This record gives sequence, structure tokens and C-alpha cells, in this order.
Amino acid sequence: MSHSSKISNSVCDQVAEFRLVHADSTWSRQTAECKCVEGRLSDAKIYESSTEVGVTWTVVSPIIFTYRVIQSERLLDTSNDTLLFGHISNPAEIQALKNNSKVMKRFIVIDETVNDLYGSQVAAYFEGRGVKYKILHLPTTEENKTMTLVTSILEEVHKFGIDRRTEPIIAIGGGVCLDIAGLAASLYRRRTPYIRVPTTLLAYIDASVGAKTGVNFANCKNKLGSYIPPVATFLDRTFLCTLPRRHISNGMAEMLKMALMKHKGLFELLQKEGRSLLDSRFQLRIPENVHTDAASVSTRLAIETMLEELAPNLWEDDLDRLVDFGHIISPELEMKILPELLHGEAVNIDMAFMVYVAHERGFLTEEEKRRIIVCMQSLELPVWHSDCTLDLVQRSLTERLKHSGGLLRMPLPTALGKARIFNDIEDSIVCQAFKKWCDEHCETTMKPQ
Amino acid sequence: MSHSSKISNSVCDQVAEFRLVHADSTWSRQTAECKCVEGRLSDAKIYESSTEVGVTWTVVSPIIFTYRVIQSERLLDTSNDTLLFGHISNPAEIQALKNNSKVMKRFIVIDETVNDLYGSQVAAYFEGRGVKYKILHLPTTEENKTMTLVTSILEEVHKFGIDRRTEPIIAIGGGVCLDIAGLAASLYRRRTPYIRVPTTLLAYIDASVGAKTGVNFANCKNKLGSYIPPVATFLDRTFLCTLPRRHISNGMAEMLKMALMKHKGLFELLQKEGRSLLDSRFQLRIPENVHTDAASVSTRLAIETMLEELAPNLWEDDLDRLVDFGHIISPELEMKILPELLHGEAVNIDMAFMVYVAHERGFLTEEEKRRIIVCMQSLELPVWHSDCTLDLVQRSLTERLKHSGGLLRMPLPTALGKARIFNDIEDSIVCQAFKKWCDEHCETTMKPQ
Ligand SMILES: NC(=O)c1ccc[n+]([C@@H]2O[C@H](COP(=O)([O-])OP(=O)(O)OC[C@H]3O[C@@H](n4cnc5c(N)ncnc54)[C@H](O)[C@@H]3O)[C@@H](O)[C@H]2O)c1
Ligand SMILES: NC(=O)c1ccc[n+]([C@@H]2O[C@H](COP(=O)([O-])OP(=O)(O)OC[C@H]3O[C@@H](n4cnc5c(N)ncnc54)[C@H](O)[C@@H]3O)[C@@H](O)[C@H]2O)c1
Ligand SMILES: [Zn+2]
Ligand SMILES: [Zn+2]
Repeated sequence: MSHSSKISNSVCDQVAEFRLVHADSTWSRQTAECKCVEGRLSDAKIYESSTEVGVTWTVVSPIIFTYRVIQSERLLDTSNDTLLFGHISNPAEIQALKNNSKVMKRFIVIDETVNDLYGSQVAAYFEGRGVKYKILHLPTTEENKTMTLVTSILEEVHKFGIDRRTEPIIAIGGGVCLDIAGLAASLYRRRTPYIRVPTTLLAYIDASVGAKTGVNFANCKNKLGSYIPPVATFLDRTFLCTLPRRHISNGMAEMLKMALMKHKGLFELLQKEGRSLLDSRFQLRIPENVHTDAASVSTRLAIETMLEELAPNLWEDDLDRLVDFGHIISPELEMKILPELLHGEAVNIDMAFMVYVAHERGFLTEEEKRRIIVCMQSLELPVWHSDCTLDLVQRSLTERLKHSGGLLRMPLPTALGKARIFNDIEDSIVCQAFKKWCDEHCETTMKPQ
Repeated sequence: MSHSSKISNSVCDQVAEFRLVHADSTWSRQTAECKCVEGRLSDAKIYESSTEVGVTWTVVSPIIFTYRVIQSERLLDTSNDTLLFGHISNPAEIQALKNNSKVMKRFIVIDETVNDLYGSQVAAYFEGRGVKYKILHLPTTEENKTMTLVTSILEEVHKFGIDRRTEPIIAIGGGVCLDIAGLAASLYRRRTPYIRVPTTLLAYIDASVGAKTGVNFANCKNKLGSYIPPVATFLDRTFLCTLPRRHISNGMAEMLKMALMKHKGLFELLQKEGRSLLDSRFQLRIPENVHTDAASVSTRLAIETMLEELAPNLWEDDLDRLVDFGHIISPELEMKILPELLHGEAVNIDMAFMVYVAHERGFLTEEEKRRIIVCMQSLELPVWHSDCTLDLVQRSLTERLKHSGGLLRMPLPTALGKARIFNDIEDSIVCQAFKKWCDEHCETTMKPQ
């Protein structure tokens, strides 16, 4: 080992640990032993060691992210406080804002189609509440999901002017709109609070409940983005009344994902009530049954199981993720035949194939496999696609290996509503599963319309 | 109160708290009482409550940021491991990478001027280490500090291809280059590790040790950005040998800031040795004195005091910040007369004025005030500027009130090396201080060259 490489690596044995104490406007370092200063203690720590050429500091600083996901009703009803104050948990703070004579401001980013349907109600809400507002409606499609749209939001936000601490940006629309607006908010002044109001089923149970924002870049899905959660997500299923049926199915794919991975009860509910949920667009049939209706129970379970997996892994530092089920081969497939397939449809094709892999591995019986496929079909989701070739499957698995720290990390159902993550799925299993999958579906399955 | 507003606000008394446990690839919720499942416990929590219209979930999830700031020497010497492995704390991990036959890749973003001076050494380093590399040199000036440059970095990164987990982007240059490249890295795949190698004094003691990245937008400084720290910062003062003298002074302003706010010893050192540090560009005069030389001690203290204030407030959630000293009126001044003034120069003019305010408030004696001003002058920093009018001062204070949650939060020295944050500085004090400041300097001060 040469002289200088020795220099740079040889750390003296001693590593000093410092806590940080706040007193008289000033933070001071303090060792665990010597508590010279009294004051507020930080969760952050600084470690210090010396080498022959200087000092090495290690900073360890936890940031706590807090956000609320709130089911509401009649969100656009002027008498409903949620849209204005739902992100604030402290009632005194809300009261103070209500008493304040200063005119409140809100900047709203909304999907163009959603604006055509609900824009006037949104305007009426803020008019009615005496809020100074600006509604920016944008064509937030998958093709427009780019940095360019983020920048145009930022220009408008800047022109309008908001108080970075107390006037959150509000995004209303599907996953595309929420992802774009969320990224804009996380960049503005290095982080501006924002609120998500999902208007598609997919956004309601999936895109709205985690921390991710993003845009497509260089022909890759969500290549740029951040992990900044909203201050709050406000859920109102009424929006789904106007959503095309195919998009209801689309969202149900992600719901089925959570069922297969974690919750047999949810699977059985989808099996039994899925078709009628699709027909009713997740609206309550009997208004009294707020907590027991299939629409309430299924969305609640989908969100609960999703939050369970997301909350402990908000920044996706752990690569072992059950929520990746259905997302192993679907990205390749999606990019290949966009816009023919919606996201949830591609996810479902991926899941259907994986169910065959799980069966081939002996985790699912023939009967369980059949039940799952039949359930998918009853939700009007595609279970096979001619463009999902063996070659594409194998390429996707290789890609995953490369991007997952050398391990496959493939989530597979091991029973109905149970799953584990596997690193050792042999190619022969994949090939056999693929063959059976094609044999059983290539003739009977229609391409999605 | 109307019916629906009652609905949305009335939360049932019961809020359930859930911890999250990991077992068999799956996260499960668990109340504090019932520990049904054994497994790894997350720091995240989920709170759940019910209203008449649905459920409210509150997610609380801490993310721990860890980064290293490492003083090194001969960073571009092929035998020095730091540039390749310094960000990794685990020796076994380094060894594994060294043993791995896979060719390592590094993407380097470097300031154009720095590239002219050191580019061939950087190339030789990676050649010598058998690393596949791409050096992207860019005109990273304050005028180019925009999203456009961020995007062009991202395009090149994407073309080159890096392993998001193990191949950090390396930024080499002044604060502008590090801020731009840092933002690009924090956006790429929602977060790609990056390394900072500062080549200016300002970046060495300030821009490199915190979490902030950023670009200018809509004529405002650092309006867009993130709080994503690098995995590591590698410090090597040799780069300063080629830095223009004025830029050494520039960095010393931020050093003086920390001295005035927190460290009398550092102030006295700057008073005594400042001029000779400027002359020697912070190089060691006697190689043996690594730990006792004024250049080592002053940079070490500047970084230590800076980290003390930054680590507990990495995302600037606390608005009471001593490090804002010198940054109250300087942003307005900077934008007004860019590019005449460098950042540190504008900061110093701001600090000089604030010293008069502190004197007027009775915190600093006439003698202390004089000592500080004389020290600034010996560092060749401007202590007054004709464009810094009373009107600009008052406008800046009003702006600050607006953006700091209604409080002034003005850091002021209360003695040499001590400071507190004040909300109650009267306008009359500001006016008197301003008058004295002008009386004592408007005739004698030359404009900075
Ligand atoms: N951030 C995350 O964690 C996350 C999770 C999953 C998906 N996503 C992203 O979400 C996007 C997909 O979301 P999506 O399926 O909501 O697509 P989308 O946003 O494109 O919306 C689908 C279509 O429905 C229309 N629409 C929306 N609400 C409507 C309503 N109430 N009535 C009638 N029409 C309505 C839209 O105009 C659009 O044409 C993808 O870009 C995906 O990457 C993000
Ligand atoms: N992220 C943070 O926390 C933080 C903190 C302070 C300042 N900043 C930012 O840093 C920027 C100012 O940084 P700066 O003062 O380093 O400016 P800079 O990056 O513009 O560099 C100053 C000049 O020195 C040249 N240069 C750099 N290294 C050199 C070397 N070794 N030899 C010769 N020339 C060299 C550069 O080409 C440039 O012309 C501002 O944009 C400011 O907003 C960020
Ligand atoms: Zn998905
Ligand atoms: Zn500064």
C-alpha cells in the first residue's frame, strides 16, 4: 500500500460522538458524558475522527415526514373545511387562520379533463370561502409528463405568489397530474407543501398515499422525481362517477395487487363484489353503510395495506418491496406498447404471468391460480398479451437484477393473500410458466380494446 | 356550523397508534399493546382515526440522512483512494468493490475553469484506477445556474449510465457547480448519490457541508432546489492555490460569519492571521503542522461551527437560524448589483451594517465594533456600499417578516463570538445605525474593484 493511500484511510482509533444542544439561539456540540449546557436536544449527531491529514466528520440527521390521508365527502361543498384546513391537525391553528383578516391564497393545479368536469365547482368553493385563488389547468397526460410541464407550473406559482409555509399548492387529478404537481412543489423554494386530491381510482388507492413524485425523462417512466410526500391527501370517491369504466378496472389492478400480496379478505371481497364495484364506480349504495359497504371496505383495505408497506420504506431504501409485484415486467411492456395499455392493465398482465410462476414453483394450487385469473377477468383486466414475449420477460428480469443490487427480489404469492420475496427463481421455471401461460390464454384472450 | 363542515371535522375520540413490524417479507401493523408478530420494528408509525365519512390516516416516517465531510490531501493522486471509496465507511465493502472484476464507472461534473486547471489530473486519476469515466465540463456561472443546465447534466448522465446505488456522481468546482450537480443528482431516479469536491474557499467551508442544492429561477437566487446532502464531501485545500485572491476574501466572509456568531477564538485568529491566510491561500506553511497551523485550525473551526448549526436543522424547518446572519439584506443587494458583488462580499456588507445595529442596541461596544470592521477590511472585504440604501434595508426586513412566519428572526452579535436571534428590532434603531454606518464609511470606502 502506497504512502498516500495509507494516509487517507488510516483513521485514528478514536471516534468522538457529539450530540447537539440548543440554548440561547445557539447549537453546541456536547459529548454524551459532559452535559455542560442545558437545553433542547436534537436527534441529529455529529461524529468526528482525525486522520494524519485532517478531520472526518460524519453527520447523521433524521428528518421526520408527516402526512395525512383523509377520507372525506363533498370535498367541493363550500361548507366543507377539508380542502382549506384538512392538512392542519391542530384546531387552534385552524381557528387562528380563520380569525386572521389576511386573505388566504391557494394555487390549484388541475387536470384539463377534470377541470372541464369540476372546474366550476372548484372555483365556486374558493369564491365562496373568500380565498384568492388561481386554477391552472393542464393537459396532464402520460406523454406530457415531463420537466417542461413542471417548469410551467413553477412559473405560474411564482407569478401568483404564495406563502411557502401556510399556503399549500393543491393538485387535483389523476396520478399524472399529482406526480407532476408534487415534483413542482418539492422543487419550489426547496420544498413547498402540497395537497393531493385524486380523481381516478388508481390515484385514490395508490399514487396518492405515498411520497413519490415524478416525470418521465429520456423515454423512461418516472426517471426524474423526488420522495417528498404531500402534507395531506384528501379522498372523495364522488369524483369516480365520471371516470371511464376502463379506468376503474385500471385502478382495481393495484387493489388486487395488495390483496394478492397481503390480504386474503380483500381478495375474497374483490372476487365476490369486484364486478359490482366496477359497475357502481365505488359509490355507496346505501348511504348509511359508510363503514361496511364493499366500496368503503375495499378502498380502506387497499390503502391500509399500501400504507403498511410504504410508511416504513418511504424513500425506498429497502429494495425488498412487496408493492413491486406486478411491476417487474410491466415497465418494459408499458413502454413498448404505450399508449395501448394503461398502467394497471400492464401491471395485471405482469401479475397474471407471475401467478403462473408461483404455481409452477408449487406455491399456488391449480384451483387458486384459476380463482385469481377468473377474478382478474371479472374486473375486465387483461391477463395475457401477445407483446409480452418470453424474450421481454427475460430481459426484464435481467434489468431488475442489474438495478436491485445484484439480487432478483421477486415478490411472489405463496398462498392467497400471502407473499414472499425470492432471489432464486430458475430460468427453467420461468420458461415452463411462460409456456403454460401462453397455452392457456393466447387463443382465448382478446387484446384490450 | 353547517352539517357537512361538522362531518369533516368531527373525529371520533379514538386515535389508534400502530407500529410496523417486518417478518416474512411483509410489514404488518401492530398496536403497542398487542405484539402478535415477532420481527424487525420500523421507526415509522401510522395513526388511524374514524370520522362519520371515513378514515383518517397519519403517517409519521423518519428518514435518516448520513453524510461524511472528509479532509484529505492530494485527492487527485492515483494512489489516494478517497475519490473512489471515501464515501464508504465499511472497509469490507471497499474491499469487495476492489475485488469485483466489474469495471467501475464514474460520472464527473466539473466547472469549466477548474477543468482547464485540473481536468487532465482528474482524467489521469480515473485512467490510473482503471475506471470507466465521463468528465462533463460546464460553464457553471451564476448566470447559468438554471434548470437548463441541470437538464443537460441529466441527459449526459442518462446516456453514460451509472449504477444508482454504487456509482455516485462526482461534482468538482465552486458553489455554483456543486449546487447544480447536486440538484441533478437528487432528481435522477428520485435520488442518486453524489459527491462534492469544492475548489473555492466558499464552497470548502460553506456550500459543501450542508444539504442544500439549488438553481436560480425567475430572477431569484436558489429559488428551486432540494435538501439532499451528498454521500460525501472531499476537502483538499490544494485547489485554492489557483483561486483568485478576491475569491479567497469572498470565502473568508462566511468564515467570519461563523466567528461572529459562535466562536470568539476563530474571530481572534482571523484578526491576527487573516491577512496572512489570504496571502498564503490557506496553504500549510510547515507541512508538519497539519493540526495546529492557522489554515487548518480556521477551516476546521469554520466547518465545525457550521455543521453544529446545520446538522440539527438540515431541512431548515426551524426558521431561527444563526447562519442567516449576513443573509438578511444581502440577497436584495446581490440581485440589484450582480455581477459587481460576489456573494461573500454582499454578505460582508450586510454583516457590517448589522454590527452597527448591534452596537446601537448596546450589544457591542464601540471598540468591539471597530475591531470587527478593521478585521473585515484586513480581509479585503467591502464594509459599505452606496447601493445598500436605507430603503433597500427596510424593504429587506419587510420581506423577511413576510417569509419567516411573521417574525423578524434577526441574528445579531451580542458580544464577540456570541449571538442571539431578535424579533423586536425597532425601526428607529435601524435608522440610527444606518446613519452612523454611512457617516463612518461613505467617504472612506472604495467600491470593490
Ligand atoms: N406517485 C406514485 O406513487 C404513483 C403510483 C402509481 C402510479 N403513479 C403514476 O400515475 C399515473 C397514472 O395515473 P392515472 O391512472 O390516474 O392516470 P391519469 O392521471 O392519466 O388519468 C387517467 C385519465 O382519466 C382522466 N380523469 C381523471 N380523473 C377523472 C374523473 N374524475 N372523471 C373523468 N376523467 C378523469 C384524466 O384526464 C386521464 O385522461 C402514471 O403516470 C403513474 O406513473 C404514481
Ligand atoms: N448549497 C449551499 O449550502 C450554498 C452555500 C453557500 C453558497 N452557495 C452557492 O455557491 C455559489 C457561490 O460559490 P462560489 O463562490 O464557489 O462561486 P463559483 O462556483 O462561481 O466559483 C467562483 C469562481 O472561481 C472559479 N474557480 C473555482 N475553483 C477554482 C480554482 N480552484 N482555481 C481557480 N478558479 C476557480 C470558478 O470558475 C468561478 O469563476 C452561489 O451560487 C451560492 O448560492 C451554496
Ligand atoms: Zn403501479
Ligand atoms: Zn452565504
